[in-house]
Amino acid sequence: MNTDGKPGQQGLFITFEGIDGSGKSTQARLLADHLTAQGHDVVLTREPGGSPGAEEIRALVLQGDPDRWSAQTEILLFTAARRDHLERTIRPALEAGKVVICDRFADSTRMYQGLSRGDLRQMVDDLHSLMIGVEPDLTILIDMDPVNGLERALSRQTVEERFEDFGVELQAKMRAGFLSLAEEFSDRFRVLDGGRAIDAVAHDVAETVAAHLG
Amino acid sequence: MNTDGKPGQQGLFITFEGIDGSGKSTQARLLADHLTAQGHDVVLTREPGGSPGAEEIRALVLQGDPDRWSAQTEILLFTAARRDHLERTIRPALEAGKVVICDRFADSTRMYQGLSRGDLRQMVDDLHSLMIGVEPDLTILIDMDPVNGLERALSRQTVEERFEDFGVELQAKMRAGFLSLAEEFSDRFRVLDGGRAIDAVAHDVAETVAAHLG
Repeated sequence: MNTDGKPGQQGLFITFEGIDGSGKSTQARLLADHLTAQGHDVVLTREPGGSPGAEEIRALVLQGDPDRWSAQTEILLFTAARRDHLERTIRPALEAGKVVICDRFADSTRMYQGLSRGDLRQMVDDLHSLMIGVEPDLTILIDMDPVNGLERALSRQTVEERFEDFGVELQAKMRAGFLSLAEEFSDRFRVLDGGRAIDAVAHDVAETVAAHLG
Repeated sequence: MNTDGKPGQQGLFITFEGIDGSGKSTQARLLADHLTAQGHDVVLTREPGGSPGAEEIRALVLQGDPDRWSAQTEILLFTAARRDHLERTIRPALEAGKVVICDRFADSTRMYQGLSRGDLRQMVDDLHSLMIGVEPDLTILIDMDPVNGLERALSRQTVEERFEDFGVELQAKMRAGFLSLAEEFSDRFRVLDGGRAIDAVAHDVAETVAAHLG
């Protein structure tokens, strides 16, 4: 990982990003299985959460009324969870030479808290620089048409009424935001078309990662 | 309060600081009673906590193993709690012209997280500037000899063995830190000798505040 100058890290830090229903969680799991079968030591994790403390913070953020926290407080709580996740799960695994695969990381905060709830991107970035300071070696963006993504996401919901809450408009804004982020951090982002069969996407993910591991 | 330029704030923001056992919580309560009797509209609050969300974060930070959070994660959690407390309790009260009396605020984080668990003062200050940006109008430091403070604090404990955990050395370091902070922010700090009878200290507190309200 691009870190704050710590020596001895030999692992590979891979993150998956994308809108809800893009299939990134499935692809993260398939990649973990694939690399494990190849003999790699893999840690599959996710955000928010990924360590016992971070999971408790996740529960605190996600439970209850959606308006119970302001966007700014939410950013602080997610950053606290990320700091714990980094210290307790990600960094130790990388220092032991493992491959860490993480379903969402700081890029999701840049989008969901930095873009969807107002123009707070600068605050998110400043907080990241101050308290996290780590970027993945490789970020795979599973790009997906917002309508298709929404259909996929909703097929997992039991209550169809959540459609209104989700909103195609927000999904479209997030998709555009992720694509823009991929240009901004073009050194570590790879964009894959998630609108294809799962195994076709998985094949591309494996090839992309193989290039980094080689 | 010295704020980020918001107009219309007419209240007074008073904080109490000091080591454990200094009597600051008692003095905060006595001041609230005194000002209420004088006809002021007073909000007495405390940190960490002071709003429903912040109280939940407080519980998350303070419960369990003392080492469950790193100093950095703890700073983030306290700042999240402070942001919620500021948005939901302190700022609305000040904007309504009330007197807000708060038992501990950012100065306690500067001391306990910035000083006692390593040299993290710069991180605490940067985070404060970025996410809080508010200082009290008046901070009353109840100064107290560490040994006397410890005796007072311990007289409230049921388990005497906690003495070892507390430690006179840490208390002495915190006392010196608070006195140094009072010099650094001499415009808003007033230092009162807490080693006297409660009503003598309360008299001085009332006089100090009267000068600000006058």
